[in-house]
Amino acid sequence: MVQQADLDKLTTLARPHRDMINIMPLQTGSILTDAARRVLVEFGDGYSVCDFCQGRLVDIANPPVRQFVGEMLPEFLGCDCATLTYGARDGVFMVIHSVAKPGDVVVVDGNRHYSTAVAAERAGVELVPVPNSGHPEYRVDVEAFAGPIRDRKPSLVILTYPDGRYGNLVDASRVGEIAAEAGVPFLVNGAYAVGRMPVRMDALNADFIVGSGHKSMASAGPSGVLGMKAKWQDVILRRSQLHKSKEIECLGCTVRGVTLATLMASFPTVVERVKQWNEQVAKAQWFSTAMEDLGFVQLGDKPHLHDLMVFETTALFDISQRVRERGYYLYKEMESRGVWGIKPGQTKALELSTFAATRDQLEQVVEAFKAILEKYA
Amino acid sequence: MVQQADLDKLTTLARPHRDMINIMPLQTGSILTDAARRVLVEFGDGYSVCDFCQGRLVDIANPPVRQFVGEMLPEFLGCDCATLTYGARDGVFMVIHSVAKPGDVVVVDGNRHYSTAVAAERAGVELVPVPNSGHPEYRVDVEAFAGPIRDRKPSLVILTYPDGRYGNLVDASRVGEIAAEAGVPFLVNGAYAVGRMPVRMDALNADFIVGSGHKSMASAGPSGVLGMKAKWQDVILRRSQLHKSKEIECLGCTVRGVTLATLMASFPTVVERVKQWNEQVAKAQWFSTAMEDLGFVQLGDKPHLHDLMVFETTALFDISQRVRERGYYLYKEMESRGVWGIKPGQTKALELSTFAATRDQLEQVVEAFKAILEKYA
Repeated sequence: MVQQADLDKLTTLARPHRDMINIMPLQTGSILTDAARRVLVEFGDGYSVCDFCQGRLVDIANPPVRQFVGEMLPEFLGCDCATLTYGARDGVFMVIHSVAKPGDVVVVDGNRHYSTAVAAERAGVELVPVPNSGHPEYRVDVEAFAGPIRDRKPSLVILTYPDGRYGNLVDASRVGEIAAEAGVPFLVNGAYAVGRMPVRMDALNADFIVGSGHKSMASAGPSGVLGMKAKWQDVILRRSQLHKSKEIECLGCTVRGVTLATLMASFPTVVERVKQWNEQVAKAQWFSTAMEDLGFVQLGDKPHLHDLMVFETTALFDISQRVRERGYYLYKEMESRGVWGIKPGQTKALELSTFAATRDQLEQVVEAFKAILEKYA
Repeated sequence: MVQQADLDKLTTLARPHRDMINIMPLQTGSILTDAARRVLVEFGDGYSVCDFCQGRLVDIANPPVRQFVGEMLPEFLGCDCATLTYGARDGVFMVIHSVAKPGDVVVVDGNRHYSTAVAAERAGVELVPVPNSGHPEYRVDVEAFAGPIRDRKPSLVILTYPDGRYGNLVDASRVGEIAAEAGVPFLVNGAYAVGRMPVRMDALNADFIVGSGHKSMASAGPSGVLGMKAKWQDVILRRSQLHKSKEIECLGCTVRGVTLATLMASFPTVVERVKQWNEQVAKAQWFSTAMEDLGFVQLGDKPHLHDLMVFETTALFDISQRVRERGYYLYKEMESRGVWGIKPGQTKALELSTFAATRDQLEQVVEAFKAILEKYA
C-alpha cells in the first residue's frame, strides 16, 4: 500500500545541481535555452502543440511545425525531407523496421550505442559489427566496412557519429561511399552530432540521419529528428491504408507536446552554435591535455575532435581502494567542488563532456581533480 | 532558404487561449497541476530525470521513478507490474508487437482510435472490428465479441474504454470474460479513462491496460503508462540479449525527461480526482441535457457516462451555409466568447469534453451556443 507521504513527495521533485558545472555527457547538449524555458511553461499542458492541428502533426501551421519540419530541418540536416521522433533510437528503429525484414543483416560500427542493438533485436535483424581497434584508441577502420558489406549483403549500414563513449569521429562520408557502391542504404546516428557540430547528411553520403533533441539540440526530452533522401520518403513515411493522413512508423503522431515546443524554440540558437564548433574542439583539446598533465589517459581519437571524452583515471581508482566511501568518494568530492556529472561510484574511467562548460569552468574542473589527487596523496 | 525572421519567430512561440474555458477533448485531461508546472521548470533540460540513473529508467531512485513505476502505478492501475511509455498508442504497439506475429488477427471494437489501426499495420497484423450499432448511439455490443474471437482465433482482443469520439463505455469486464474463456489476452485502451475515472485492470478481467499522460493524467506529453498481469512481464518487458538491463520493446528507456517528471508530480492529484468521477458524470449529463434543450442531438450512450461527447449541431451547420466565413464563423464566435476547443471549420458535429470546465463555465458554454443561434436566427 503506497503511503500518502510518498505520494506527497512527488509534488516537490527537485534536482540537486542547479548552478553547478555540468560535465555529464548525456546532459551538456540539452540544457535549455532561455527561449526554450519560456515555451516550456507556455506549452506545458498535454497536446499543447495540437491547438490548431487539422490531422497531421507535421502540417501544423501554428506553432509553425510545418515550416520547421518541412523547411528548417531539411536545410539544417542537409537532407530532402525530415520528420519528428521521440529520440535518435526511435529514428533508428523506424528506419530498420522499414528497410529490413526479420532475419536480415545490418552492418554497424563496433562503437554503436546500446539502443542500436536493442532496436535491431526489436526488429528481428542481425547486427554485424565492424570491430574497433581496442585500447587505447578504439578506432573503427572505415575500410573494414567493405568486407561485411560484401559478404553479408546487409539491408542497412549504420554509423554512430560520433560514438557516445569515446567521442570518436569516423570518416562517415567514406563509409557512405562504400555503402553506396554496394547499393546499401546508409544511416548516420548523429545523436551527439546534430545540434553540436556542423553535420550534413548529403555531405556524408548518407541516406538517413537521426538526431536527438534531449541529447544535443538544447531541448527537453523525449524528442528527436530523422532526415532522409527523397527516395526513402514513401518507405519510411508510408501512410496507413485506413487512415491516409497518418504515417505508420510514427503511429500517426510522435512528439505531441512540450518537447516539440522546446526543440523549436531552441533551434535558432542551435543553428548558430554549431558554427562555433571549432571553439568547442579547441576547448576539448585543451581539457584533454590538462587532464593528461594530471596523469590521466584520454582514450579514443587523439588529438580529440569532439567534446565527449573518456579518461582512464587509475590514480582516482587507487584512492577508492583505501577510503571508507570506496568509489563514491569521487562523486562527493567533485560535487562539493561544484562539479556535476561524475557517476556515483565511478573512478576507474570517467566519461565527460566539455560542451556546456566554459574554458574557465573547465579550469575549475581540472583544479578540482588536482586538489583531490593532492588531498588523498 | 529559411529566413532569419522565421527562425526568430520560433523563440517566441505562444498559445492563444490562456484563461479561456477549454472543452477540447484532447486537452481537458492534461492541463497541468501546479505541482507539475513547478517540476516542468525544474526538469526542463534534456535527460533531467537521469541525474542518478544507474542503467535503467524504471529503477531510478531519485526522483523516485522506481517507486512510482514499481508500486504506485500497479496499485493505481490494478495490475501486477507497469512500465512507462510515450503514450497509449505506443503501449498498444508494444503489446501487439510482443504477443502477435505478422499475419495474426487482433479483434477490436469498432470505435477504436485510429492509432490502434496504425499500430496493427505497423506490426503487420490484421484488425477485425466488432462493429458499432451506427447512428445515433454507436454502441458496441459486448456479446458480439464472441463470434470473431471464436472464428478468427485472434492473438489479442483490444477494447477502447471509452472510445475517443462518442465517449461510450462498453462493459469491459464482460469482454474480458469472453476473451479469457477463449484463452485470448485482453488489452484495455484506457487513454480517456486512466487518470479521469476509476479504472482497474483486474476488475475489467484484462491482461493489459494502457493510459496516456498527455490525454488524461494531467501531464505534459509525450508520456504514458502500460500495466499488465505478472505472466506477461517476461513477454512485453523481455530483455536484450546483449544488454541485459535493457527492455527491447522500450528500446532501453522511454520517457527520459520532463514528461515523466510532470506525470509523477501530478499523480497524487490524479489519484484523488478519479474519486470525484461521479461529479464529472453529473456535470456531463447536465451539459448534455442543456445542449439538447438548444436543439442539438447528443450521440453515443444516453444517459451519458463520460465527459467526452459529440453533438449533432445541424442548426450551426445551416448557419455556416449562409455566412461569409462559412464553417469558421463558429470557432470565431466561440473564441470571442471565451470558449476554446471548437475545431476551426467544424459545425456539423462537435466533439467536446466537459472534464476541465466547472459547472458555471459549462453554463457559459451553453449560453454562448444559445447566443450564437439567436444572433444568426
